[in-house]
Formats: sequence, structure tokens, C-alpha cells
Amino acid sequence: MLITPGKLLAQINSPADLKKLDQIQLVQLCDELRHFIIDNVSVYGGHFGASLGVVELTVALHYVFNTPYDQLVWDVGHQAYGHKILTGRRDVFHTNRVYKGISGFPKRMESEYDTFGVGHSSTSVSAALGMASASKYLGLTDKQHIAVIGDGALTGGIAFEGLNHAGVSDTNVLIILNDNCMSIDPNVGALKDYLTDITTSKTYNRLKDDVWNLLGKLSHFGKNAQEIVSKLETGIKSTLLSQSNLFESLNLRYFGPVDGHDVDHLVAVLNDLKEIKGPKILHCVTVKGKGYGPSEKGNATTWHAPGTFDKISGEIHKKVYDVPQAPKYQDVFGHTLVELARKNEKIIGITPAMPSGSSLNIMMKEMPHRALDVGIAEQHAVTFSAGLATQGLVPFCNIYSSFMQRAYDQVIHDVCIQNLPVNFCLDRAGFAGADGPTHHGAYDIAYFRCIPNMIVAAPMNEQELRNLMYTAQLPRTQKAFTIRYPRGQGVMPNWRTPFEKIEIGKGRMIRSGEQVAILSLGHIGNYAVEACAALAKKGIYPAHYDLRFAKPLDAELLHDVFSSFKKVLTVEDGCLQGGVGSAVLEFMVDHGYQAKVVRLGIPDEIIEHGEQLELHRECGFDPEGIAHTIELMLEPSPSLKVIQ
Amino acid sequence: MLITPGKLLAQINSPADLKKLDQIQLVQLCDELRHFIIDNVSVYGGHFGASLGVVELTVALHYVFNTPYDQLVWDVGHQAYGHKILTGRRDVFHTNRVYKGISGFPKRMESEYDTFGVGHSSTSVSAALGMASASKYLGLTDKQHIAVIGDGALTGGIAFEGLNHAGVSDTNVLIILNDNCMSIDPNVGALKDYLTDITTSKTYNRLKDDVWNLLGKLSHFGKNAQEIVSKLETGIKSTLLSQSNLFESLNLRYFGPVDGHDVDHLVAVLNDLKEIKGPKILHCVTVKGKGYGPSEKGNATTWHAPGTFDKISGEIHKKVYDVPQAPKYQDVFGHTLVELARKNEKIIGITPAMPSGSSLNIMMKEMPHRALDVGIAEQHAVTFSAGLATQGLVPFCNIYSSFMQRAYDQVIHDVCIQNLPVNFCLDRAGFAGADGPTHHGAYDIAYFRCIPNMIVAAPMNEQELRNLMYTAQLPRTQKAFTIRYPRGQGVMPNWRTPFEKIEIGKGRMIRSGEQVAILSLGHIGNYAVEACAALAKKGIYPAHYDLRFAKPLDAELLHDVFSSFKKVLTVEDGCLQGGVGSAVLEFMVDHGYQAKVVRLGIPDEIIEHGEQLELHRECGFDPEGIAHTIELMLEPSPSLKVIQ
Repeated sequence: MLITPGKLLAQINSPADLKKLDQIQLVQLCDELRHFIIDNVSVYGGHFGASLGVVELTVALHYVFNTPYDQLVWDVGHQAYGHKILTGRRDVFHTNRVYKGISGFPKRMESEYDTFGVGHSSTSVSAALGMASASKYLGLTDKQHIAVIGDGALTGGIAFEGLNHAGVSDTNVLIILNDNCMSIDPNVGALKDYLTDITTSKTYNRLKDDVWNLLGKLSHFGKNAQEIVSKLETGIKSTLLSQSNLFESLNLRYFGPVDGHDVDHLVAVLNDLKEIKGPKILHCVTVKGKGYGPSEKGNATTWHAPGTFDKISGEIHKKVYDVPQAPKYQDVFGHTLVELARKNEKIIGITPAMPSGSSLNIMMKEMPHRALDVGIAEQHAVTFSAGLATQGLVPFCNIYSSFMQRAYDQVIHDVCIQNLPVNFCLDRAGFAGADGPTHHGAYDIAYFRCIPNMIVAAPMNEQELRNLMYTAQLPRTQKAFTIRYPRGQGVMPNWRTPFEKIEIGKGRMIRSGEQVAILSLGHIGNYAVEACAALAKKGIYPAHYDLRFAKPLDAELLHDVFSSFKKVLTVEDGCLQGGVGSAVLEFMVDHGYQAKVVRLGIPDEIIEHGEQLELHRECGFDPEGIAHTIELMLEPSPSLKVIQ
Repeated sequence: MLITPGKLLAQINSPADLKKLDQIQLVQLCDELRHFIIDNVSVYGGHFGASLGVVELTVALHYVFNTPYDQLVWDVGHQAYGHKILTGRRDVFHTNRVYKGISGFPKRMESEYDTFGVGHSSTSVSAALGMASASKYLGLTDKQHIAVIGDGALTGGIAFEGLNHAGVSDTNVLIILNDNCMSIDPNVGALKDYLTDITTSKTYNRLKDDVWNLLGKLSHFGKNAQEIVSKLETGIKSTLLSQSNLFESLNLRYFGPVDGHDVDHLVAVLNDLKEIKGPKILHCVTVKGKGYGPSEKGNATTWHAPGTFDKISGEIHKKVYDVPQAPKYQDVFGHTLVELARKNEKIIGITPAMPSGSSLNIMMKEMPHRALDVGIAEQHAVTFSAGLATQGLVPFCNIYSSFMQRAYDQVIHDVCIQNLPVNFCLDRAGFAGADGPTHHGAYDIAYFRCIPNMIVAAPMNEQELRNLMYTAQLPRTQKAFTIRYPRGQGVMPNWRTPFEKIEIGKGRMIRSGEQVAILSLGHIGNYAVEACAALAKKGIYPAHYDLRFAKPLDAELLHDVFSSFKKVLTVEDGCLQGGVGSAVLEFMVDHGYQAKVVRLGIPDEIIEHGEQLELHRECGFDPEGIAHTIELMLEPSPSLKVIQ
């Protein structure tokens, strides 16, 4: 079912069309745009609250600025649905986040209006400043560069690095602070409190006015007062006005706060700001989920990406199953951590702004003082965890695999060089699915296994995850312990199994077999099980081993395998360059074995978005791909194409 | 020659001894400590200016606080010489930065007073906050946690992430801002200007007093004034006093600025602060290089780590050579970039706070508008470069290999997923030498070659570096181009060779040979040349190839090698897990070749500090190690020990 746009929206195929509207029509356009988003997301799913919150801002920006010549950068980008719809993608918007469809995030290859690809947060200031610096260098003094960044994203360190540079840059950059007090979960930290303060108390601007009024009035009080005024004036002008605001402290001219849902006022303000040179910030207060009752008044976290829903009742569709389903890995993590923490008082849970995404919110509810959300701050989360470990506590720091890229130095420098026993749980390892390449956890095996003092494990099912977590919290004086697991469901409806210790670096045999051995790592091993079942019907019986650990490797298991098999297939949902397959090659060659080894995994290219299974199939390691590869390996003269 | 400590310092073997001194003796102790540092560094070398700048602070901290129970974290750590000397390492201090000697940075394994290992900047707030949070959880309410962080380090994003969390943490953490306006080079950015403002102008505290005085005096002016006052008071109290300071904005109680060289006052202030609960910051103004004429009055960058010098004349010792020497790679980079930039107007140079360390200062001097220092902000440097590239400019972003770990996500997310043509120059790749494990560039080959759309090259000499840089600036619409090179000198005294384009992914044969082929990457290939020369005297003639590129590999070259040789030795100055040796194994196995491959490189452990050659020897890939390995490989039944 294609969604029909409203009358005005139907005419807008680019911002040029938008600019033909009278300003008085913008309110109606905002209404139509909002409903187009509601209609689409309710039927097709996707991110929701963030885009509803910036409808007016989106319309105003494209109405006022000369996009795409003027460069508009959306931070994170899940708020850019309105932007996509207004910039030529209205009629393909129903393919949003679908395999081969348009991306859920701005993407340079998709449109010239998408000036900078996003997905991870907090990059927009740096990107826009780079563009603005380029324009300054190239003499394009009329060119505008706008970064739209949320208050949550502003807590990420790179945003601050960008502001620090912007303040001395003398470039034409406008930072729009989209302040809705939210990340995916409610925003946390001192900055949030500060923004709330300057918005809700007698504001900075109000104070500014008051002080000026005071100075004005005092001059009527005679000589004595004038003396005081004169004494104070320099100090107040230079200090109060330039320093009483955090952003002005950083030499960014601060404007606002303004109501981010008043499109007329936004147009006026943006038109004014266009004329003001230099780095500046507009503080824009918005409501996530604005304009749709259930999302505006209900739980903003739920409505961040609600899935499909009934737009009349606001009821979110939930699949109903006849038989018990396997839980999500993230929920197994969340519940298991609470179980373990009840018995081990040293356990502390840490998440950088992903309480609901990681299911650490389960522990935050039961043990609020032992489960901490530190904000969008992966670097801090890791070093903070290292600090906890120095005091003998047992941190479980949960970070999505692709976000862990942002704390890579902290893992090396603050954890592994010091050989501290910190536990990392990497959710969304492997393909993230509809979120696409920015969110795929493709590289963690390669980028973690090259670090000394690091254990890298991946559970094949819920029981394994529980036992790895159990093992990770047992007393240990050294080594970081990483457990990576994918987005989505496991395979065990009855998952609350009793805890058993797993010997670090020990894999396990899933089935014995002949001719060829499959070595899999993690959940993807279940595909190998399916492949073996299919092959058995053809009289082919590979052996299958679950490596469990990418590091350290199970030397005994590998000696057995290479002593018994001349053909070995490795399967991982990570990059082939330097992944666990390569680790197996290193072992083989270091120990003088010779075998035909085929490695399945993520090839050396950017894999776009889609359902996980679609992407696995694309890469040839879905169950059929694995079975097919085995058959090819068993041909007398293998006709395998080389993966590289 | 062992340095004799002064009379007081000679008695101090731990902070307990320090506490026995009368406060009146501290000035003398500071004097002795300062001279002990000057005497040592002038003879043995090491970091200098930073430690001289915090002599008084160091003495005051250990005098006032109950270390090591109280947790003292030094950010970066090259200012911790005084700390080391006062905490039991006075008599081994001459082994500072020497192979098997003490580390130039705080290090947990070295002393219980070194609570957190450092080397990279900006981690101390997060680490101390982790410790403080642990103490809060454990009920250790008396325990103090102190982070000493410079104004340069404060620009690193993780520091801001830490402050944002600290402000809402209700923990016992004291952040001491050691404000000397310097990184290694002069600090840059808006924050620096702000700190200078609040220090040198009528300060925040002064303004605060003035406002209170004003309010007090106004109340004598009658009803009208009182009305104004009453109207303003609430606003001023809550807004001005809590918001007129950047740190108070983040809910950190701000104290200072204080003179960081007045030890008596520091003791008094720290004693006061000990009694004040909650997160707080003390702004301490210091002079880098304080108390030694040449370093206090001269160029602070020069005196950051001057090498050995004549302490009377202040003359820095420079080696004099009879024959022309090969230049440092960093200088070849610096001069070559200027040469290229003179002809290619699109080139822009970017460094995160390492103008002198990277030699980008050469370009900054000649083309100040085209060479930018963005502050200690590696993440921002990379995304900013990506922003430049979107506008058609040609960024050369120079970041030390180990510091690039901090921008890993930005390289993946902002550069490679978008397939933007950004050039990265990774200085200090391989072993950094005396700076030790935090600074070794051990992992870059592994962590970069797993990323799609990434070229990874390493020059074997100056000419190769120049040609790689020349190639990288030729028009190109996609792919990141990384050039990694080591700290220190190359091999070509006459290095200003004409530019030649290098075909991307093409290696070169250094010498033909028999029985075994050596595949080396980068400068370390010169060791292989030496090894071959030594082996030739024994009648052994290995072939030697310079791979040049870790990615893409030279398929033609490798097909030749594996078709012709059954024994192959790979040599790299990077980690063995997932490095270029592993890439060669992947190629071999993917293409169905079989050969005995031995990989030399950095093993899976933390390698400590020392001269580069000492460390290469330790890892077995110095010239002798390479030659020895070849001989073992040629034995009829190889007795090689497996590297793993």
C-alpha cells in the first residue's frame, strides 16, 4: 500500500518546489509531512519520534537555505525522514530500510542533498566545520554550512572537539542544537541539566536583558551608582555576556532558545542567522514524537523506532506466536546480568546511552545504583570501566560492536596494556540489519584479536551466552573478556539454563563427521547446523566445531582438526580480512599443517542494509551458502571461486 | 654518573617521609626536586618542561593526600617525574625510559602509587571518576580521587565525556586543571582562549565578588533599587553564579585560578578541598619548564623533551656527524608536503596537536592557512578531513599510529563507508622506542587492512615516502590512502628525489634469490637487506621483495613468489595477529598455494620501552634475527619454534 501525500507535499519534488510556496502555506505543509511520516512508519516501520520532532525545522531549513549548495548535515540521521521526503525521495520512501531500498540514514551516494553519511552520533559539527573550512579556503563566502545535532549527540566527545575548533575557526558554520532531552533513551549528564536550566529557568537571554536594563536604569541614580556601573560594565560585558553561556565560552555566538515547532519563527530566525558571519549556535527546543498523540505523550523511547503500529489507536503491532519463542540475545544479557549481580556484589553494568537497546535497563530498574548510563560516550564508558576494575569491581560494559570502534584506543590503552579484567559485551555483532553499514558489527573480531591481553568469545546460543557471562564474572585478575553476540533472537525458548563455567579458549564439537570440518564462531554456527542437516540428506556428513573463542584459539581442537581433515571451512559473521578464519590460517601455517581452507564471512566491501538473512545470503554464509560451499569443496577438482 | 639528590630529597623514600617535613621545608624540597629532575634529564634525556611545571603541585598533593590509598591519576603522565621520584623511584630514576628501566609514564605494574597507566592524553577524568564511583559504591567515603589534567588534554573529547558524567555523579573526585597554555606545542582552540580569559581578565571570582558587592551596596539606594535587586537576585544567584563558568555549567564546583608554583598556598587549598564533597575542579596556573631559565623563558616546545643538554649553558646537545645523515621520516613528510602543496592547491595539512612531532610545522610556517592544528582531537581531525574531502580538497591528516586508534570509528564511519579520498600519514608506526607500549604503533596494519575502501602502504625509504605522498595527492575520487612510517631516520642522505607515481598495490623486487623469499613491508625491509648481505657471506641468497602495500596486496608479485618458492618469510613491524603476514597467508590459501611461511613481527604481548633496535631484537626481527630465521628455515628439518 503506497501512502498518498497531502496536496502540497504531492507537488514537492525538491526544495526548489518548496521555495515556491508562500510562507503562510508552510504550516499546512508541515502537517502533511508529519502525516506522511506517520502513515509510512505505521505501515512500514522505521525510526519515528526523531523525525516527527524536526518536521518544522526541516521545512524551515530547506525553505530558507539554498540546499544542496548550502551544506546541511544531520547528526545521527534517524531524524532525516522529512529531509528525504522533501528532497526527491517521497515516492520511494516506502522502501526505506528495505533490502535494496533507500537507507534509513542520510547517505552521500543516495542524494546530493545528503552531504554527509551518518548513523553514529556526534560527527556533524566536525563534518560541517570541515566543509565550512573548505569553503573559506575556496573563497565561497556565501556558502552556508549547517549541522543539526541533538542534545544527546552533543555529549559525545568528538562533538566537543568540533566545538572547540569551531570557536576559533572564523567559518560560516551554524550549529542547530535540537534539544529534546532525549537520546534513544532519556539523555543523561550534566550538559542535559544545563540545557534544561537555560531553557526553563529565567533564561540566559532574559538575564542578559535584565542586566542591560539594570545598567540602563542605574545611570539615573546619580554619581555613586554610575561609578559602580562603570566599574562593572567592562567586566560584565566581557565576562557575563561572553562567559555566562557554555557555548559563548567556546566563542560560539549563542541564539535561542526558540520553539522548534513554530515554523514561521524558525524561518525568520534562520533568515536572520544567514546574514550573521562566523560560527554560531541556535538552540532549538523540540519534542520528540511531536504531533502524534501516542508518541508525543507516551514513552519516547518506545516511540523511537516502534515498528509498525495502528495509527488510529496508537497500538504497536506485536507478533503473536503459537509456540514459545527464543528470546533476543540482548534480553538474555539483561536478565542474566541481574541474576549474576544478585550473587556477585562486585558486578557493575555500564552502557553509553543504550539502556533499552542493550537491555541493561532491566538491571537499572532492579539495581539502579549498580547499572549506569553514562551518556553517548563510548570512550568514557570504557575508561570509566577500567577505573572501576582498578578498585576490584567487575564491570560489564555493554557497547554495540560498531560503536565499540569509537572506544578502540581506550580498550588498547586503558584496559589491555594495563591488563585489567574488564568485561565487554558487544551487542549487534555481525550484520545489524536494516540500520545498514554504519551499524554492522563487521570488524570487531579483527580489531580485537590483534590486541594482547584480550579474550574474544562468541556464544552460539543463549546457554552459551549465559555461561560465558558466568565465566567472565568469576574472580580473575587480568585480561579483558569480550563476548560478542548478534542482534535478534537466539535459538532456545527455554533459555534459563543453570550456569556452568567454560574453560577459556576451549571450543566444542557440535557433530563428528568426515571429509570436511566446519569451524564456526558464534550464533552463525546454527546456520552450519542447518547446512549439515541439509547435507545429511544428500549423504554428506561434515564435522562441525563451535570455536567459541576467536582468541585464544583452542589449540587442542585445531590440532585434532588439522590432523584429521584436509578440508576445513571457517564460518564467521565478521570481516574476512584478519578475522577468525585468518586466525585459523595463522595456526595452521605456524604449526606446519596443510589443508584446503575456505573462509566464509563478510567480504572486503561495504554491505548495505537489509534483513540479516538477506545479507548473510548475499555474502554466501546463510545455511544454503554454507551447504553449497561444502559441496563445492568436496568436488574432485574444486571449482571454488576465490574470496578476496 | 648517578645524580646526588639534595639533603631533604635524599631522605624521602615515600610520601610518608614527605609528610614528616614541616610545611616550611616544602619550598626547599621543591627546589631540590626541581634540580634533581634538571640534573637527571640534562644527563639522561627524557621529558622535561611538563615535570618542572608541576613540582610544587606534586609535592603539595603527596603532602596533603593519603596516597596511595587516595587515588592520584596523572593525565598523559610525562609530567609525573617528580611523582616517581617522591614515591620510591629516586634511586632508579636514571633508568627512566631505558630498556628494562623504569617507564617514562606512570604504570600500574611499577608502583602502587601509579594508579592508572597513561601515555595518551585526556583519560584521567574518566579513570578517576571510575575509581571514585567504585569508592562510593564500596562505601569508602573518606577516599579521595584526584585527576591532574592539562589544558591541552582537556580538549580531547573523552575528557569532556568524563566531565559531563562527573557533574552528575555525586562522587568524591577532584579535577586539577594544570593550565599552562601548552600541549607539546602551544595549545589551540576556543577552550584555551576561554581559560586565558578567566585567568587574565577580571576573573570570574572577581566578577562574582563585584556582583555581590554591588547587590549589597544597591540595597542602600532605596526602594527602587531594592526592587531591581530583588528582581535580579534570584536570576543572578542561580544563573550567574552557576552558569557564568563553563565548569559550573557542568555542575562541577570551580575553584581558582591559583598560582601553581606557590606550594604553601597549594597545600592550604588542597586541604580545604579535601573537606568539600562532590565533584570539583581546581584551576591551577603553571608555567611549563618553570624554574630553569632556558626552559622557562625559551621555547616550550623545544624543552618538552630536549634530549640531553648542558645544564649550565642551557645548550642542547646535538650529535655532530662527519658524513651527511639520512633525515627523519617526519621531516621528509613535512618538506615533501610543502613541495606538493606548492603545486597542488587542493592540499590541506591537518594535525591534532602534533605540529612539531609530525613536522607539519614546516607547512604551517610557509602556508599557515593550509596547515591546521586542531588540538588534541584525533576524532575531530579525521571527520574534519572527511568534511574537507567532500568539498574536493585533498587532506593529508597526520596522526601517530597509536593515536589513530582514537579515531578508528571516524576512519570507518566517516571516511571508508563513504569511500572518501582522505590521505592519512601514520607517523611512529612500529615501535615508538623510549615512550613504550602506549606509543608503539603496533596494530595499525591489522586494524586498517580489515576496513573496505582503504589503501595501506608503507615506504621502505625516503624516496618511497615521497612517491607514495605524490601518488596520494594525484586526482582520485575514492578510497582512503594510508601511509605508515616509523619514528626516526630513513636511509637516504640525499633524499630529495624527483617524484614518480607508484601504481597502487604494486610491490617491487629488491633482489632475486633462491630457496626462500623474504616479503617485507616498510622501512624494516632495510633490515632484510642487511640480513641478505650477511647471509650472502655464508653463500645463502634469499630473494627479497618489498610489498609496499599491505592492502591491496600485489597479486602478481605473490603469484610469482608462491609459484617459485616453497619457503617464504614475512617481516613487518606490526602485530602478528592479523598483520600483513596474515594477509599473505590469506592470499596463499585462497589461491591454493602451499608453502612453509614464517611470519616475523610483534608478538601477541605488550612490548615495553627501549631503543627501537633493542625492541626489534627482542622480537627477533632485527637484521640478525631475520638472518637467523632464514638459516633455520633452510635446515633440512626445520627446528623453528612456532610464533603464537
